Amino acid sequence: MKIFEDETLYIEKETSQIPWLKIFPKKDCKELSDCDDKTRNKLFRVMLLIETEMIKYYKPKKINIAMFGNYLPQLHIHVMARFEDDSYFPEPMWGKKQRDAKLDLPDFQKFKQILLKRLNSL
Amino acid sequence: MKIFEDETLYIEKETSQIPWLKIFPKKDCKELSDCDDKTRNKLFRVMLLIETEMIKYYKPKKINIAMFGNYLPQLHIHVMARFEDDSYFPEPMWGKKQRDAKLDLPDFQKFKQILLKRLNSL
Repeated sequence: MKIFEDETLYIEKETSQIPWLKIFPKKDCKELSDCDDKTRNKLFRVMLLIETEMIKYYKPKKINIAMFGNYLPQLHIHVMARFEDDSYFPEPMWGKKQRDAKLDLPDFQKFKQILLKRLNSL
Repeated sequence: MKIFEDETLYIEKETSQIPWLKIFPKKDCKELSDCDDKTRNKLFRVMLLIETEMIKYYKPKKINIAMFGNYLPQLHIHVMARFEDDSYFPEPMWGKKQRDAKLDLPDFQKFKQILLKRLNSL
C-alpha cells in the first residue's frame, strides 16, 4: 500500500506484524550505483528519517535496513522496526521463524501522520 | 578477517561462497542515526564504492546490502555480490537454501588489491 509519493520516490507499507516500510525511487535503478546522486541522496535522507521516526514512535530493539531486489530488479530499501518478541528476532525477517508472536504496538495511522508531516517538510 | 582500516571505519571479509564484505564504523553507533554525519557519509561512500567495484569485477546478478545488527548491536553494513546460481538466490543469504552451489568466481585477492587502491584514494 502506497503511503507517500513525491517527484523522486514513493513509500509503501509492507503487510507485516512489525512496522515495515519500503522506499522506491521513481527512476529505473537496479542498483544504488545506477541512481543519480540527487536521487540517491534523497533515498538516504528518507531512509534515515523513517529510521529516526520509527525509533521515536515505536522504541524498537533495533532497526533493520535491507536492499535486495533479487526477485524485483528495481532498487528498493526496506526499513523495519524490530522487537525482541517479534516472530523472527534476532533473525532477519527473511530468516528462520523463532516464535508465534502477538505484538502490541502503537497505532500505525498515528505514526503515518507524524511521518508524512516530516516527509513533507524535508 | 579485516582487510582495510582507516580513521573512521574498517572492512571485514565474511567467509562465504559469495563475495561478501562488512563495513563497521569505529565509533560506537548502534543505528545509522547514532552516527555523526561525517561518519555516516563515509560509510555510504565506501558502501557505494564496494558495490561499484564488485559489479565491475564479479559481474553479479544483483548486489545485496543489509544492516541488521540484531545479534551484534554495533552498526555494520553487509555488501554482497549475488549470482543466479549461488546457494540462496533469489532468497537473501539469510533465507532458505535453494541448492548446493559450486561457484567459479574470479580471484578475491585481485579484487582486494583493486578495492584497496580505490579506498586509499577516496
